[in-house]
Amino acid sequence: MADTLLALAHDLPDVHASDDAADRVAYARDLWPRHHLAVRAGNVAGHRPAVVVWPETTEQVARVVRWAAERGVPLVPFGAGSGVCGAVLPREDVVVVDLKRMARWRAMDERAPWLEVEAGHMGLPLEEALGQRGFTLGHFPSSILCSTVGGWVAARSAGQASGYYGKIEDMVVALECVTGAGDVVTLHRRARGPDLVPLVVGSEGTLAIVTAARLRLHPAPSARAFAAWSFDTTEAGWNALRDLFQGGLRPAVSRLYDPFDAMLARRGRVGRPRRADDVPISPDPGAGAAALRGLLRHPGALNEVLDSVGSRVFGGALLLVIFEGDGEQSSRDVDRARARVEALGGRWEGEGPARRWLAHRYSISYRQSPVFAAGAFSDTMEVAATWSKLPALYQGVRRALGEHVFVMAHLSHAYPDGCCIYFSFAGRARRAPPGGWDAACEQLYDGAWRAALDAAIEAGGTLAHHHGVGRSKAPRLGAELGTGIDLVRALKRTFDPRGILNPGALIPPVDPDPYVADAQPAELSA
Amino acid sequence: MADTLLALAHDLPDVHASDDAADRVAYARDLWPRHHLAVRAGNVAGHRPAVVVWPETTEQVARVVRWAAERGVPLVPFGAGSGVCGAVLPREDVVVVDLKRMARWRAMDERAPWLEVEAGHMGLPLEEALGQRGFTLGHFPSSILCSTVGGWVAARSAGQASGYYGKIEDMVVALECVTGAGDVVTLHRRARGPDLVPLVVGSEGTLAIVTAARLRLHPAPSARAFAAWSFDTTEAGWNALRDLFQGGLRPAVSRLYDPFDAMLARRGRVGRPRRADDVPISPDPGAGAAALRGLLRHPGALNEVLDSVGSRVFGGALLLVIFEGDGEQSSRDVDRARARVEALGGRWEGEGPARRWLAHRYSISYRQSPVFAAGAFSDTMEVAATWSKLPALYQGVRRALGEHVFVMAHLSHAYPDGCCIYFSFAGRARRAPPGGWDAACEQLYDGAWRAALDAAIEAGGTLAHHHGVGRSKAPRLGAELGTGIDLVRALKRTFDPRGILNPGALIPPVDPDPYVADAQPAELSA
Repeated sequence: MADTLLALAHDLPDVHASDDAADRVAYARDLWPRHHLAVRAGNVAGHRPAVVVWPETTEQVARVVRWAAERGVPLVPFGAGSGVCGAVLPREDVVVVDLKRMARWRAMDERAPWLEVEAGHMGLPLEEALGQRGFTLGHFPSSILCSTVGGWVAARSAGQASGYYGKIEDMVVALECVTGAGDVVTLHRRARGPDLVPLVVGSEGTLAIVTAARLRLHPAPSARAFAAWSFDTTEAGWNALRDLFQGGLRPAVSRLYDPFDAMLARRGRVGRPRRADDVPISPDPGAGAAALRGLLRHPGALNEVLDSVGSRVFGGALLLVIFEGDGEQSSRDVDRARARVEALGGRWEGEGPARRWLAHRYSISYRQSPVFAAGAFSDTMEVAATWSKLPALYQGVRRALGEHVFVMAHLSHAYPDGCCIYFSFAGRARRAPPGGWDAACEQLYDGAWRAALDAAIEAGGTLAHHHGVGRSKAPRLGAELGTGIDLVRALKRTFDPRGILNPGALIPPVDPDPYVADAQPAELSA
Repeated sequence: MADTLLALAHDLPDVHASDDAADRVAYARDLWPRHHLAVRAGNVAGHRPAVVVWPETTEQVARVVRWAAERGVPLVPFGAGSGVCGAVLPREDVVVVDLKRMARWRAMDERAPWLEVEAGHMGLPLEEALGQRGFTLGHFPSSILCSTVGGWVAARSAGQASGYYGKIEDMVVALECVTGAGDVVTLHRRARGPDLVPLVVGSEGTLAIVTAARLRLHPAPSARAFAAWSFDTTEAGWNALRDLFQGGLRPAVSRLYDPFDAMLARRGRVGRPRRADDVPISPDPGAGAAALRGLLRHPGALNEVLDSVGSRVFGGALLLVIFEGDGEQSSRDVDRARARVEALGGRWEGEGPARRWLAHRYSISYRQSPVFAAGAFSDTMEVAATWSKLPALYQGVRRALGEHVFVMAHLSHAYPDGCCIYFSFAGRARRAPPGGWDAACEQLYDGAWRAALDAAIEAGGTLAHHHGVGRSKAPRLGAELGTGIDLVRALKRTFDPRGILNPGALIPPVDPDPYVADAQPAELSA
């Protein structure tokens, strides 16, 4: 570490760098819950990077990359560290490249309209500054308080309003990035020839480091219109959701909660991500922990009970939608939506649930700690499929997870041809094996994920919709891509011939190397 | 040639192949007007392929590719040959791979909905068969009578209804293709990781041969609503067009004709592509040819006269739009559009112009021959830019072309952030140089194109919007892509290590080779 910093300081004296112990610990994690188990045990060994650098210009990024390529030093590009799949979890020989000092607006064209902004710009301040000028990017991931433009591009992020504005890949017009060879390349999304932008979007820092993005903007909406309906079954709800999108309606927000999730939503908790801390626990941490431990001891039984009482007790599934635009059009859209949804059996629930959801849209849960403090864990899994495969995906993943953990689900990010299912789950080991509680939790966690990923692939779904692949799902990417994985590997060699960019993330290694084996339990790579 | 066929027949006896003289002449061209000049002179030498093969399965395509890769034989994938940029113009050592015997429907999912269809399926029968099942692909290129699914994907085609349904790249969910190494790969457009589909879409057969595509479908629209407005200037018209799309309206069709084009449109010729045969010429071929020769002798003066009388004589620019969907919504869309456009100075022209356009949408001009028979040529150039750059692009390309040829323009394929400009031009050499009239026409043609492409790049526009790059624009792709061209070359080596797939198309060679030098006049590669 000291050697790496000395060499860096000698060769690139103008690039701000540190191997201070506090910095190294601060960058020894992202928000991957599995790693959270280790952090809870106070164990960050193996993941403190050698050095952290904070380049301020694209030219500095390029020089850092060329420096690293010459020496074979692995780099991990870093935004705000809120990924949940271990995509930026470093190992100890890594130089972390934090882009947050690159946060300038470079150019704006109000006629097109677009904004060119550097990759390190944080999410919420960007949307607020655009709003003051009468624009919106339309990108509202629930991580908007703790994520960057570069992170969105790298992970192929989706915001809550994706129904109208699309995912981040629909917003990116051009990317400036630095390849693994240290070349600065600007890729424009143009009308002819192959489009290279979609290669880098979603590549999670493994092909190039994104330094700036030109993003398509929209006029800020002047009005919103709200609607919600309940259904006897989740299936009836998603048939209505499909009908809305195939009928040409494009609600910015659409969310369908299954009966238990819907019950929580009706109780006003709908603004928070469906995480384990939404399991009704007492505000007293001690009592809550005990209740949680009890609840999570028999997840299979708990899931079955909730399934069987389902809509009878909880009042059915709940679909809420929000249209954006000018006032007249938005309320017409609600009229059209009501006609369609109510013809399919939806019961009108008024504007309230969708309004409440919007009011709490950023009430992001930073309160995982009570769950983890109770010796349990929580996580989320977002998968997607075309409508025909959705029932098998929903049932398959739910069943697979349900054998290990307590699981809830909602659907969001709908499209004319399919939808994303967002599972939230929480678990706790029943008894401590020789390795102790943490090892037991890890075993349970790995078992749940392995079963869920297998089920998603089996059902013909994707491994991920907007959280990315990271290190947690990389070993399964080959199973989803089939022969396409060879092309991805070939592209990796093309963009990053020395293999220094974020090794271990996204792309499964042909021969497992120690980094991946370390970050990745053997069971997951099976 | 005989050797190639003998070797093919020996190694792949079940693949239908021919080196019959008639077949070789039939495949010695596409619809690139420059090559048309040579064809007019009866000269197809240099472009008759060695052999034509008609594979019937993906497996046969893969075996042909592996066979060719082993021997270094160049392949040209072929759909229906209606490209206008020389993308499938073969040389004499080439094996043409005609995909039209692969035209099966493989699978259809009416819930998503999507269709998986083989690459050789022709356009219009596909749309008709989908219509019988209540669906539409929404892809209506003016070449729909003479183009295939694979050709659309290869060229990144746009249909007339792209305002609502998008370009072909928005319709492709998955591609089955054969790489230059002979590997069959299926690429799915999924939510996570890098998206490889956009690499192959638009790659014009240089990275892989597309054998099948899974295409997103839409419910067939139950109604259409029509609108048209006139404007004093073309600029006022495109401001209104921009306002429509940025205001959230998505007319399937939107076309803005400049004053002279609009005059032709008003005379009922609006359904035909704006080509030289729309220059008002007498139905008597002899008199027409003479009139055309006269008109085209001084294109600069003619352009100036038409410019200066412009809107006064011709009645201004004309914008027509067509909304699709259910009846109620479509007519509401027209109401919303009227409010916006008329606030910006548009004069309501009723439904007539747009209805007439639709009635003649497939009245494609196969009548280039009178123009060419008159010793002249015609061509079209479609470029695109964001709205801010559109005025410079329009004026720059118009001026550059106008010094060489007679030029008209219309705008179609609008988006919230920009638009395509479609130039139509016709020219004739003023005097015969030593090489004769054909050589003189070629010189004029090359000069016009060189000036126009330079002007498009100078204005920050694209070289092409939906006709592709082919052989005619390949030498300039580097000027548009900048350093990105190195990545394209690296991708070419990755997908097609032997360089056998459609060499000379799309990707400018690092060292010009005889094929390109032959197909490409030196001036164009300057």
